[in-house]
Amino acid sequence: MSTQNPVFIPGPTNMPEVLRRACDIPTMDHRSAAFPEILHPALEGVKRVLKSTEAEVFIFPATGTAGWEAAICNTLCAGDTVLAARNGMFSHKWIDMCNRHGLKVIQIDVPWGEGLPVDAFADALKADTDHKIKAVLATHNETATGVVSDVAGVRKALDAANHPALYFVDGVSSIGSMPFEFDGWGVDIAVTGSQKGFMLPAGLAIIGVSPKAMAAIDAADLPRTFLDIRDMKKGYEANAYPYTPSVGLLNGLKTACDMIEAEGLENVFARHARIADGVRAAVKAWGLDLCAVSPDLYSNTVSAIQTPEGFDAGRIVSHASTRYGVAFGAGLGDVAGKVFRIGHLGMLTDVMALSGIATAEMVMVDLGLDITLGSGVAAAQEVYRQSAAAMALAAE
Amino acid sequence: MSTQNPVFIPGPTNMPEVLRRACDIPTMDHRSAAFPEILHPALEGVKRVLKSTEAEVFIFPATGTAGWEAAICNTLCAGDTVLAARNGMFSHKWIDMCNRHGLKVIQIDVPWGEGLPVDAFADALKADTDHKIKAVLATHNETATGVVSDVAGVRKALDAANHPALYFVDGVSSIGSMPFEFDGWGVDIAVTGSQKGFMLPAGLAIIGVSPKAMAAIDAADLPRTFLDIRDMKKGYEANAYPYTPSVGLLNGLKTACDMIEAEGLENVFARHARIADGVRAAVKAWGLDLCAVSPDLYSNTVSAIQTPEGFDAGRIVSHASTRYGVAFGAGLGDVAGKVFRIGHLGMLTDVMALSGIATAEMVMVDLGLDITLGSGVAAAQEVYRQSAAAMALAAE
Amino acid sequence: MSTQNPVFIPGPTNMPEVLRRACDIPTMDHRSAAFPEILHPALEGVKRVLKSTEAEVFIFPATGTAGWEAAICNTLCAGDTVLAARNGMFSHKWIDMCNRHGLKVIQIDVPWGEGLPVDAFADALKADTDHKIKAVLATHNETATGVVSDVAGVRKALDAANHPALYFVDGVSSIGSMPFEFDGWGVDIAVTGSQKGFMLPAGLAIIGVSPKAMAAIDAADLPRTFLDIRDMKKGYEANAYPYTPSVGLLNGLKTACDMIEAEGLENVFARHARIADGVRAAVKAWGLDLCAVSPDLYSNTVSAIQTPEGFDAGRIVSHASTRYGVAFGAGLGDVAGKVFRIGHLGMLTDVMALSGIATAEMVMVDLGLDITLGSGVAAAQEVYRQSAAAMALAAE
Amino acid sequence: MSTQNPVFIPGPTNMPEVLRRACDIPTMDHRSAAFPEILHPALEGVKRVLKSTEAEVFIFPATGTAGWEAAICNTLCAGDTVLAARNGMFSHKWIDMCNRHGLKVIQIDVPWGEGLPVDAFADALKADTDHKIKAVLATHNETATGVVSDVAGVRKALDAANHPALYFVDGVSSIGSMPFEFDGWGVDIAVTGSQKGFMLPAGLAIIGVSPKAMAAIDAADLPRTFLDIRDMKKGYEANAYPYTPSVGLLNGLKTACDMIEAEGLENVFARHARIADGVRAAVKAWGLDLCAVSPDLYSNTVSAIQTPEGFDAGRIVSHASTRYGVAFGAGLGDVAGKVFRIGHLGMLTDVMALSGIATAEMVMVDLGLDITLGSGVAAAQEVYRQSAAAMALAAE
Repeated sequence: MSTQNPVFIPGPTNMPEVLRRACDIPTMDHRSAAFPEILHPALEGVKRVLKSTEAEVFIFPATGTAGWEAAICNTLCAGDTVLAARNGMFSHKWIDMCNRHGLKVIQIDVPWGEGLPVDAFADALKADTDHKIKAVLATHNETATGVVSDVAGVRKALDAANHPALYFVDGVSSIGSMPFEFDGWGVDIAVTGSQKGFMLPAGLAIIGVSPKAMAAIDAADLPRTFLDIRDMKKGYEANAYPYTPSVGLLNGLKTACDMIEAEGLENVFARHARIADGVRAAVKAWGLDLCAVSPDLYSNTVSAIQTPEGFDAGRIVSHASTRYGVAFGAGLGDVAGKVFRIGHLGMLTDVMALSGIATAEMVMVDLGLDITLGSGVAAAQEVYRQSAAAMALAAE
Repeated sequence: MSTQNPVFIPGPTNMPEVLRRACDIPTMDHRSAAFPEILHPALEGVKRVLKSTEAEVFIFPATGTAGWEAAICNTLCAGDTVLAARNGMFSHKWIDMCNRHGLKVIQIDVPWGEGLPVDAFADALKADTDHKIKAVLATHNETATGVVSDVAGVRKALDAANHPALYFVDGVSSIGSMPFEFDGWGVDIAVTGSQKGFMLPAGLAIIGVSPKAMAAIDAADLPRTFLDIRDMKKGYEANAYPYTPSVGLLNGLKTACDMIEAEGLENVFARHARIADGVRAAVKAWGLDLCAVSPDLYSNTVSAIQTPEGFDAGRIVSHASTRYGVAFGAGLGDVAGKVFRIGHLGMLTDVMALSGIATAEMVMVDLGLDITLGSGVAAAQEVYRQSAAAMALAAE
Repeated sequence: MSTQNPVFIPGPTNMPEVLRRACDIPTMDHRSAAFPEILHPALEGVKRVLKSTEAEVFIFPATGTAGWEAAICNTLCAGDTVLAARNGMFSHKWIDMCNRHGLKVIQIDVPWGEGLPVDAFADALKADTDHKIKAVLATHNETATGVVSDVAGVRKALDAANHPALYFVDGVSSIGSMPFEFDGWGVDIAVTGSQKGFMLPAGLAIIGVSPKAMAAIDAADLPRTFLDIRDMKKGYEANAYPYTPSVGLLNGLKTACDMIEAEGLENVFARHARIADGVRAAVKAWGLDLCAVSPDLYSNTVSAIQTPEGFDAGRIVSHASTRYGVAFGAGLGDVAGKVFRIGHLGMLTDVMALSGIATAEMVMVDLGLDITLGSGVAAAQEVYRQSAAAMALAAE
Repeated sequence: MSTQNPVFIPGPTNMPEVLRRACDIPTMDHRSAAFPEILHPALEGVKRVLKSTEAEVFIFPATGTAGWEAAICNTLCAGDTVLAARNGMFSHKWIDMCNRHGLKVIQIDVPWGEGLPVDAFADALKADTDHKIKAVLATHNETATGVVSDVAGVRKALDAANHPALYFVDGVSSIGSMPFEFDGWGVDIAVTGSQKGFMLPAGLAIIGVSPKAMAAIDAADLPRTFLDIRDMKKGYEANAYPYTPSVGLLNGLKTACDMIEAEGLENVFARHARIADGVRAAVKAWGLDLCAVSPDLYSNTVSAIQTPEGFDAGRIVSHASTRYGVAFGAGLGDVAGKVFRIGHLGMLTDVMALSGIATAEMVMVDLGLDITLGSGVAAAQEVYRQSAAAMALAAE
């Protein structure tokens, strides 16, 4: 696989060179005075990206899965009940984790391609008058289906029911790329990783924790050490870590936050929307449908594209890889073989996006799908031309 | 702190440029055919460094602490009993972790500076006739005290007692730098990390697991997901990971194994011994003592050096950092303020070691200790001259 | 200008990461035994790329202009006569250099877009019965017009006239990308640089010198020191340079030759032809013409594309840069404002080429040219699909 | 040769990582608007390092030798007379270049180890009443002998004689490391390179040119194109180069100037003096002499150290390289075999310097010289301790 072409997987993303260099630094003594100069700005940067003034941010040298696990282990007790929906591979996996940790899960199954069932959540919360539900789990952006859900709506449901449950949100493939309002949405723990919106290598599990969730930590009895927020908090207070931190990745995270803020968080979101619009215009020009069932659910970080009945979508991914050296995402779980995914998150340019669209076209034609070469490219070009013109005008 | 000077902390080590570059690679699709070309050689390389033909190796995107936790979570049940000694900060922390996970710990306290109490272990194992002890925990090299222990001796004690307990060894600061015999010593789980003998950034918890330990996994009831060996094993069998792997670090690990084997594992051990001899010659010339109480306990990866009664050894570390831009290790736990540490593991040259020794001398004289400038350097130079001459002769 | 998009200038080219790293090495003593391990393989690699068994290769820490100057200074005397054609900016500049060095130039002017006037050269050589012409200068690939000329034909003209003149060829934008036969074409000095077919940063002037040209060196009286081949030759014989060499670039050159040979020189040429075919198919689909007046002159490293009468082609270059962050080449000299250039040399993929073509389309539509979005992309996609399929078939 | 140890050659120097990265950038279109953002700050930065308000700076993609050649070719005519002293290898080479270009050289031979013969220059200039001497050539710092000369004194001699000759100074191994006053010393052309005080790879010839020297350019008749200042000047005025520039190195130069000015030019000089003092203290402790005959001539960038009569100093260099992986400089020309050189220029720390001194000691003892291990280190440690203490005090 050529390393010259961009990747179009929904994370890890294409890494800007400045971030690769921020991560690749000589060995630094993590107990020296230089370390807090990296740690604290990284923590503060994440807070701003989360749009929170009150969250405490903790960063584990791990991945998003550990972030989920940190959320539940640090706040819940064996036997506690949680409420969750299963509408894609990642919500599925989080539920599985809860089961393994001895939690009881009220699981609401939703067809893949749909969003969080806000109404069903509202009903379940209203029905839970004795507050057995200790936490509600929501996947903001289902990476498997390209579906972004109504996280604010679930908060409204909680509030409407006057329900005290903690609210945990998986924002792994949304935070830093799509609007996320930690405080505004009343999130108690938000989970993300380094390799998506932050454009870094995998290796950091990043969580934001509300004061309410912090208050639950001492009573939580699920065993944990590596992921124990208490040790981490104590460490930060002493400018240190409870174990050896990933100094390079933390420096990358600090730099990524600087980079995001230099572009402007809203501009980053707008860029993701713009790039995604181009991809969606191409999909439409190809005569194909997204997995996401309605436009309000369209993700700006990944598009899962349905291929015609009877066609194995996985062939697109493998053909693109072997013949053109380009990586797309395969369908997972319930939609395996039915969709292929174009990831369009992180630091992407219009020009890069067009190369992915052009490649997808060649692949689909090679495999006999009824696609016109250049059709999707032309549709995306039109989107990018107009948005570039509008930006140029605005900058005048 | 200058990044031009080597660091002399006991890990993370100075990183050879070839390893930094192996870690810093463009984004690769971890579901592509290129990934197993990295994963499997890394796993095989670790096996050879462990000197094992039968271990299964698992690599978590985490740190050594997670490696310890993976060992206990995957093999033990809540309420199980383990046998452990506390002779330094890292054995202390592992015991603490066991307590947090609801394990019962038979803890043998040993003065810091001493090694594993093989006889006491033997007694405890003999006494445990109904085999309540499910696992014995040993720290091969106590990074806090510069003490290397008799791991083989504990195995002998297990065998002498005909005891079925699993045998877990923390080899974080020994594996890849000092002789380690996974099969030969009958180790069931060996734990290490990327940032010591493998000369990489922190971010990988690496464990080797014996068939006997593998057999214990299904029955283990401590909750885990991120660290679940079962998911990891299933992933590897499909050339994949249960979540996003640290592809760059894995590529670094593969390359580090190649590098170690190109030099020759025994040569790497000999180099560590040689460099350490020079440091110890300097310590002797300074008229100071090591924390390790006898020569058989001297670690070849880190020397903890006792400073005179009444002198705060921590001042050496901070003065070296602020005045000369050089990082040494501070004393931890029971020996905080009493020792400072010179780390000498990883890819170090004689010339680099001499610069650390020369700096330590300046620092100690600056701080009023009765040290003769050049004395330790001269003693180390003599060691390095002679060993270099011997190697040159051998190479003829 | 984003550094994420490929560049489409006709050199310096997009640099493969492996070559950037080969250039970016720590300081090495260029008088140590490590240096000849870089120098000699680099010299030998260039020889093979030149397809020569007898050339001596010299590499100056300079650029192609210095390569031209080295050719004339080391072989000619003030007042000597040379024969040259002016059919583009680079042949123009070489002639200008000859004039500045007091050489008499028999200059044959040719419309830009045409190739070397082999017949006119033949006539001039035949007419020069007393052999006043000491050297014939030929530009293999006119980077300004995208014209590749018949270098072999000029050799035939020399031979037909039985003329002893030296034969100097500027292969700056052809060597390593298009077929070049130093021995086969009877070239006496070939000139190239690091930043084109060798895919490196600018900074090396590379020349191959035939035994016949070497024999002319002592008699040459044009003054030179930095570019004196005699000093360089003496240096190489002692594994050294007459002054400080660009060790990093030389290491890059060695690695570039390895890379070219690993792909196969003929495969590299075929890849350039294939990529160029795609670009030319796009140009045709746009309804535009190349500057090169006939297909036999089409360069596989750069296409100069004529824009409609009255349209300032320079606007394409500046608009592409400011609006889309993509660099194309402007028209130079006689064709300034009349053409824009797409460079397609060096390590390019189909996918990268498509992104350049797609960008050019957006730019031309933005600027009001009558171009259909997607049309050029579709034409190129067809070329790339078919060639990729053919290669896949051949590899089976 | 290990790349982990610092080099102690008198250039190329150890490169700070930030400068390596500044040089190693992705391909940039040198005709884009991004290029002048690199070029002009680099030119301005050099001017400030030269301490000139009126010099025009020109940067050729070449080396210091080309800088010398640019100085003479652009200002002199064939047959012109220049005045120069030969007191080391680099003054010797410049004289040789003048001879090759048909200049007449009034050559004053001086024993190697001595400085510029200011009095002899004064006499020659006074005697030249008809102003045949068109230029005076001075080597500020003789890298071969570690001798820094009185450049200001020669200017005084010129002024005393009221002589209109141009004044050219080779500052290759002094500029950026030792005080240099372009305007203050009335220098007409100063020559330096990228690989010494600017801490970059070799590959840039950097010259500063006074208005008086600029005025001589049109009349100069020595042939030149690659090194023609006129083309370069015209290029800069159009934000461009007459040929492909070394964009990476220029970006490195810009960054190096920023780095030097962030430290403070006077602080950089003081650091070089301090490091050199330590080396000289070591030499004295070893009982050896410098090649430089008196303290006022001691160079702060390189020390040439005399070895005892009958001992081949070259053995030190080769033994250090093969046995300890450390590069020192060999003796050149008249002092070949009689001296070895420790380069101590560029971004060096005390700690790095001590490692070089410690290595030299081991080497000399290995080779049977009567040196006490640790003696030179101790002397240098004392210098570095005291200077570090003084700096710490000053910073309070």
